[in-house]
Amino acid sequence: MKSPRTARPAPRNALYAQSGGVTAVINATAAGVIEACRRHQSRIANLYAGRDGIVGALTEDLIDTGRESAATIRALMHTPSGAFGSARYKLKDLERDLPKYQRLIDVFRAHDIGYFFYNGGNDSMDTALKLSQLGERTGYPVACIGIPKTVDNDLPVTDCCPGFGSVAKYVAVSTLEASLDVASMARTSTRVFILEVMGRHAGWIAAAGGLAARRAGDPPHLILFPEIAFDRERFLARVKEAVERRGFCVVVASEGTRDADGKFLSDMGTRDAFGHVQLGGVAATLARMVKEAHGYKYHWALADYLQRAARHVASKVDVEQAHAVGRAAVELALAGRNAVMPVIRRKSSKPYRWDVTSVAIEAVANKEKMVPRHYITADGFGITAAARRYLEPLIRGEAYPPYRDGIPDYATLRAARVRRRLKTEFKV
Amino acid sequence: MKSPRTARPAPRNALYAQSGGVTAVINATAAGVIEACRRHQSRIANLYAGRDGIVGALTEDLIDTGRESAATIRALMHTPSGAFGSARYKLKDLERDLPKYQRLIDVFRAHDIGYFFYNGGNDSMDTALKLSQLGERTGYPVACIGIPKTVDNDLPVTDCCPGFGSVAKYVAVSTLEASLDVASMARTSTRVFILEVMGRHAGWIAAAGGLAARRAGDPPHLILFPEIAFDRERFLARVKEAVERRGFCVVVASEGTRDADGKFLSDMGTRDAFGHVQLGGVAATLARMVKEAHGYKYHWALADYLQRAARHVASKVDVEQAHAVGRAAVELALAGRNAVMPVIRRKSSKPYRWDVTSVAIEAVANKEKMVPRHYITADGFGITAAARRYLEPLIRGEAYPPYRDGIPDYATLRAARVRRRLKTEFKV
Repeated sequence: MKSPRTARPAPRNALYAQSGGVTAVINATAAGVIEACRRHQSRIANLYAGRDGIVGALTEDLIDTGRESAATIRALMHTPSGAFGSARYKLKDLERDLPKYQRLIDVFRAHDIGYFFYNGGNDSMDTALKLSQLGERTGYPVACIGIPKTVDNDLPVTDCCPGFGSVAKYVAVSTLEASLDVASMARTSTRVFILEVMGRHAGWIAAAGGLAARRAGDPPHLILFPEIAFDRERFLARVKEAVERRGFCVVVASEGTRDADGKFLSDMGTRDAFGHVQLGGVAATLARMVKEAHGYKYHWALADYLQRAARHVASKVDVEQAHAVGRAAVELALAGRNAVMPVIRRKSSKPYRWDVTSVAIEAVANKEKMVPRHYITADGFGITAAARRYLEPLIRGEAYPPYRDGIPDYATLRAARVRRRLKTEFKV
Repeated sequence: MKSPRTARPAPRNALYAQSGGVTAVINATAAGVIEACRRHQSRIANLYAGRDGIVGALTEDLIDTGRESAATIRALMHTPSGAFGSARYKLKDLERDLPKYQRLIDVFRAHDIGYFFYNGGNDSMDTALKLSQLGERTGYPVACIGIPKTVDNDLPVTDCCPGFGSVAKYVAVSTLEASLDVASMARTSTRVFILEVMGRHAGWIAAAGGLAARRAGDPPHLILFPEIAFDRERFLARVKEAVERRGFCVVVASEGTRDADGKFLSDMGTRDAFGHVQLGGVAATLARMVKEAHGYKYHWALADYLQRAARHVASKVDVEQAHAVGRAAVELALAGRNAVMPVIRRKSSKPYRWDVTSVAIEAVANKEKMVPRHYITADGFGITAAARRYLEPLIRGEAYPPYRDGIPDYATLRAARVRRRLKTEFKV
């Protein structure tokens, strides 16, 4: 009689790649993937990581995660940004970019990659989906599992996206602290403070600024969402009202703030690899507007990468969810699933309870989840109680990194390279 | 025989005022002053605080700190910004602003203020000095004690200024985190990242960015100090070199970066109450320069108030020193000293040991301490080992605030008003 053990297929290798803008907790997802793979070495022999994400996969520049100690992998839990390197490198549809997809399959075949874990946002889910389709079509079996990651929180189905909770906490804490600063100086100095935050199309990050307020009237006094058409006169009137009533005005503005015609308030004039316009300068534009109309002294801040890299003030819930989706991705792969993505499911808001389930990638690829209208107050400048119920649990808990000599002791990988097997080169 | 007790003078009242730009730890100094006064109620009957600093003193808008609970005062230890309100309101020399100084003496007399604690930077020390001189001249005895506070770290004599260690830690941590972000994306995205930091004339805050590097070659690759004349060609050559050698370039730039003619790289075009030019836009200017010369994709951040209000990542050493100088100020006053300021004295760097001593205000008023040349590397773009030895101890230790619902639980004062005694009004 055959034992169930021998009936098992021979172990294959797996590839993990980080994609798109990095976050404070994407490495916690990497830790989840790596630790889960290590627990299943009879099924997954080696886990490789693409150096600089999909670019490493294309160029056959793979990192052997097996060369990293268990302690280093644990340290990824508290290390921000993409430890293996990420990429803004979008693969277009199968017809137009077939040679690239084919190249990926070639690299997979050369390294016996049976499982591909792609950790990114909407665009990356699309790539994972296409790769799984091409795998089926060309007879090379590879389980493509998407893993959600985006500070923008704009993936559908999942209750939230790992990476968002920490940037939300950063923005809420920073808004609170800057507001206290302005409040204490307003009598003789700055009257209006504007914090520009990320969130190209969806206003989730801007909404998080609203969590700085505990009571009605607390700052921020105005939030500008990409979902709400910007109206100069209404904005200026509300700034004036806040200054006259409270002595100062704090504004949290999404970089994607735009007018009724969809025109962005400001625009750096450059485009990234995905063809998205690279935004910036909304705060400066608003500040000039306020100065011209009312003459108030202003200050503004542009947190830029600081907000999404701020592991030092990460949300504990976010870290835990990031790790959980990494672990779940491996479990889905080992359960024989393909073209799926683990998602966070909220079971209750008070007390906050969640688990991880999964969804077909098709349901999330290239789709964006905006802030729903009922999360935004009727006047368009604040968040509702429903939004607070949704957002608050996501920034709960602190998960401080260890410090050495006054700065966080973030992990550094050996990042040992896997020996190349292909003779052909690929130019990115 | 008379007991020594009865020989003591009748208790008088004291006034505490916060001045200039606030910090993450100025309230820890307030806590030090208040707690020390409470321990000496036989000598100091009531401690008042000026609402919005010296403006409250001028308008007789005083807060009775005695109405705050011990728990609230303790909570000031972890609360950023000026809890009593601060002011950018400079008193000029005695001849030109005599009515204002006279008004202060009138308010002091009306409330039997025998001790004045003025918590600020160079300008405020000048005010405290003049007030003590006028007090002597007009026969109204008041002990004027300056208490150092400035994120700029530019006061002489004292080893460092409370407020600086925390902004230094914020800048070091943020530089480290943003650098990891850029490093992980540089292959296909941002190559150059610029963080603009405060420090109008002295480059101490910019220098702190250098603490993000643990090893040679680590980011930041370039630091721009106000003390070093900016040279466009040398800067651009070094950016190119870093990108070609390391794949990316991180720059920490002081808002006061200026060329050999003393011209600031950028200028918001407005002036504050002290007549200082309000700067901003250095990072944007540098980024445009890099883009034009090399075509690199860039990002930049302007932390603005976020950096000086960031109590969530304060330096424990800074919090302790801020509290200590507050306590010491009261002890100096009770020891009969006048026109003095407590200063931090470094006894050893490794291990770091310090105590509090004092200096005549005259030695610090209106003087600025720049970053010495030997703290800056020969090429003008980095910090030396000597600078590290000086800076590192100042960012040591974490002193997290308590959190509630995901955000810090900062103190709110009752801020009860002291009954007015003067019939005359003062218009600010």
